[in-house]
Amino acid sequence: MKLGEKIPLLDHGYIQYIEHYGSDERIIEAARMSTGKGFLGWGPTHAPNCGYVGMPDDPQRSCTCGGKTTPGDEKLLRFLYENKHATPFEMAGIVIEVQAPIFVFREWHRHRTQSYNEMSARYTPLPDVNYVPTIDRLLVNSKTDKQAGTLKGSEELTEEGAAAFQEFVRIQYASAEVGYQHALKIGVPKELARVHLPVGRYSRMRASANLRNWMAFMTLRSAEAAQWEIRQYSLTLGSEIIHPLFPRTWELFQGSL
Amino acid sequence: MKLGEKIPLLDHGYIQYIEHYGSDERIIEAARMSTGKGFLGWGPTHAPNCGYVGMPDDPQRSCTCGGKTTPGDEKLLRFLYENKHATPFEMAGIVIEVQAPIFVFREWHRHRTQSYNEMSARYTPLPDVNYVPTIDRLLVNSKTDKQAGTLKGSEELTEEGAAAFQEFVRIQYASAEVGYQHALKIGVPKELARVHLPVGRYSRMRASANLRNWMAFMTLRSAEAAQWEIRQYSLTLGSEIIHPLFPRTWELFQGSL
Amino acid sequence: MKLGEKIPLLDHGYIQYIEHYGSDERIIEAARMSTGKGFLGWGPTHAPNCGYVGMPDDPQRSCTCGGKTTPGDEKLLRFLYENKHATPFEMAGIVIEVQAPIFVFREWHRHRTQSYNEMSARYTPLPDVNYVPTIDRLLVNSKTDKQAGTLKGSEELTEEGAAAFQEFVRIQYASAEVGYQHALKIGVPKELARVHLPVGRYSRMRASANLRNWMAFMTLRSAEAAQWEIRQYSLTLGSEIIHPLFPRTWELFQGSL
Amino acid sequence: MKLGEKIPLLDHGYIQYIEHYGSDERIIEAARMSTGKGFLGWGPTHAPNCGYVGMPDDPQRSCTCGGKTTPGDEKLLRFLYENKHATPFEMAGIVIEVQAPIFVFREWHRHRTQSYNEMSARYTPLPDVNYVPTIDRLLVNSKTDKQAGTLKGSEELTEEGAAAFQEFVRIQYASAEVGYQHALKIGVPKELARVHLPVGRYSRMRASANLRNWMAFMTLRSAEAAQWEIRQYSLTLGSEIIHPLFPRTWELFQGSL
Repeated sequence: MKLGEKIPLLDHGYIQYIEHYGSDERIIEAARMSTGKGFLGWGPTHAPNCGYVGMPDDPQRSCTCGGKTTPGDEKLLRFLYENKHATPFEMAGIVIEVQAPIFVFREWHRHRTQSYNEMSARYTPLPDVNYVPTIDRLLVNSKTDKQAGTLKGSEELTEEGAAAFQEFVRIQYASAEVGYQHALKIGVPKELARVHLPVGRYSRMRASANLRNWMAFMTLRSAEAAQWEIRQYSLTLGSEIIHPLFPRTWELFQGSL
Repeated sequence: MKLGEKIPLLDHGYIQYIEHYGSDERIIEAARMSTGKGFLGWGPTHAPNCGYVGMPDDPQRSCTCGGKTTPGDEKLLRFLYENKHATPFEMAGIVIEVQAPIFVFREWHRHRTQSYNEMSARYTPLPDVNYVPTIDRLLVNSKTDKQAGTLKGSEELTEEGAAAFQEFVRIQYASAEVGYQHALKIGVPKELARVHLPVGRYSRMRASANLRNWMAFMTLRSAEAAQWEIRQYSLTLGSEIIHPLFPRTWELFQGSL
Repeated sequence: MKLGEKIPLLDHGYIQYIEHYGSDERIIEAARMSTGKGFLGWGPTHAPNCGYVGMPDDPQRSCTCGGKTTPGDEKLLRFLYENKHATPFEMAGIVIEVQAPIFVFREWHRHRTQSYNEMSARYTPLPDVNYVPTIDRLLVNSKTDKQAGTLKGSEELTEEGAAAFQEFVRIQYASAEVGYQHALKIGVPKELARVHLPVGRYSRMRASANLRNWMAFMTLRSAEAAQWEIRQYSLTLGSEIIHPLFPRTWELFQGSL
Repeated sequence: MKLGEKIPLLDHGYIQYIEHYGSDERIIEAARMSTGKGFLGWGPTHAPNCGYVGMPDDPQRSCTCGGKTTPGDEKLLRFLYENKHATPFEMAGIVIEVQAPIFVFREWHRHRTQSYNEMSARYTPLPDVNYVPTIDRLLVNSKTDKQAGTLKGSEELTEEGAAAFQEFVRIQYASAEVGYQHALKIGVPKELARVHLPVGRYSRMRASANLRNWMAFMTLRSAEAAQWEIRQYSLTLGSEIIHPLFPRTWELFQGSL
């Protein structure tokens, strides 16, 4: 997928790259402030116009032009990452746009090192777009996180039960919308006409953070204990946006999960 | 009201003092780090065992024992406040407990310098407590903030219309609860059984911040443009909790609004 | 001066643009999240394929094709700025490199919303580059900030006195360097060999912040009460880096000083 | 040592408890917000006036009065700690006063989640108190952190070399002070008269942070790779102040180092 396109998530959500700053190289440059050197180069050798045999991070990789192989800066990047020298990773960042249900935003906004601008139901009527979990999703009995799972003593969810819940949710959403539109029409202020709207309704925001804090976000929200819905956003952010922009940092992050 | 009691707000909410640290004196002490002096004293004179004529902050206040009157530390506190030397006000803070509708928490959590621990519908079923605005509240046509007011082209809200909206909201809340309990019973995971719950449902949290950041919160949330509901929490925090704990800082804050 | 070149400051310092993200337009886009619209355009009219008479910010500017003139987004930018809707200004930012005396960095690092990577005397010997104030600078008797001025009861500084202080400082710097090099040579650990180095020695860092926080920095550090040395960095950051990158926000910032 | 007394560190430094808020119990209370319960009690049983057999955290511990043993909240505290549910640890905090050399403060102030008020050489002449490392300290060849050790190619430091360095540092400090006092006397502004003062000069500050962030501070600054000087402050903060105030959290923190 091309960077900048809306990447669909859940039934009506998306995540979209807006812009970024920094790079794996810039992170090295910032870290080298401590010793006064700059970015030296990746790979086992940095001779220009020289072919390589082997993958970029293969320690056995050799240079086909016979030049002296020198240690590459990927070693420093790894050292920074593994020893939690986190500040150089603040010298890069990403701005994204996200459409997600309100209950996902509720979890997201606990990350206090990000910057947010969100659609506001005080200022504009929220579009009638709402989240309905799929049958498959409903049937996943969260074994990885008992706390978030089913109520103690409840029955085992059947496919019919899941379908009935979907149907109930759709009706509840529909009646909420009818009442919302009517309230707005008869003059209930926007900020009050919304009190009965569900936390499954979609909202939209811009979010900005530096790379260190996006990784902190992903550490929590890509984890198995995270709610499946926000996990989709977190995993997609990683693989579709952070991976192409910061390939070496991404590799280190994945190795640490 | 005694400090530490739950102060009722809206129809089912409250705000409650849990604990605090620091004082007006500590703020002075911290500011005096810059010059190496400590807290000297309030009032026009600091002679011990000396009576006063006049109220503590009366500039004409005099000391009955004829001693030399010296400038009191309230002058320094005012200087700090008026010149935005804000860091000494970080040397004091307050922890509170709050019960409020989710849409109020959504606004509250934008304040990223506070610490939060909130009830989670992933882990425990949310109690069936929901916000219904009063008729009077519904009839207030937000003239102070047009953006948050009624939809352009809407009718003028009547008392009957307001009552009908209340009734609709109550029914919507009730059907949401029925569906929620049923979903939990048949085995829908807690984290999904809640997707249709309204943003008017109450939640509960502990919130902690230093005094500088509580004042930043109140500057935005006690303002006329703030939504009336969160404004009640902000105004009450100020008058019932901050006022008795930090009387001199509170006086300066109020003077600056 | 071309963006990205080192801009000299003091006797051996500099400030240098490294990169940035966002723009005046992105700020508008982020703010429009609240209502769901995007950036509409600057100027008194946005009719496509239409010529203009007048400069972009001229309120009398008219459109030559006779079309209806519509309010431009500079009105929204002004509204955001003047009403302290600060979060959209977090959707843009700047990374710079700075060389400045340690005592300037001591003030700079109090800004806790920035990211820093600085040269470290623990890891590398600090270059022998030190700050000597000019005669003119020494003779400025800080009338704007009595606290930072001369000691109470001191003499009035003469040109000869200033020159003598310069000479003393140079000698003190030179003997510090001799002892530093000797200590390093005989095996004193780098982290201890530096204890006698002066706060006037230059250090170097990368600093990153979003535009909101750069403006907070400049509000304090471009003020007349700020120390003259850090003020040069702050003023130069504004006029040479922020001005060309965010011309409309810069104009609003300047108007508010 | 009694809480609140100045605890001496290095040759002229100290660390001093000023105040705190919260407790191990409050942390549990805050965490329990998520499920709506409060603090239940420590130990395998909470019957009052009841003796115990075994250590507090021994799962086999039994109560001598025959009461039913119930799971204690230390299990929840451990769960929170080990699973990095860090926010409840923000519901407690400590304010301290610290006197330390400027180069220690330079490292300290990189912790951007703390609040600081420090003595300022712009406003008041800095007292003539300076750090001279002991012979023993100088002779420790940092093997734990090569980067911070001796310069590559340097000699091995001898006891005579260390003593000579001490002597040099004392003389350099003395001449710096003579020049400083003279400069102040002849009218050099305070903010400039200090440019040659050494980073080994002591300064003083108040510092405030919540418990989560004090632990983050200690994780970095009590580590073997930290500079020995700041490490003394960090270790003392832990053992003399955090230990008595938050004994159960301290135990968990120590176990994780």
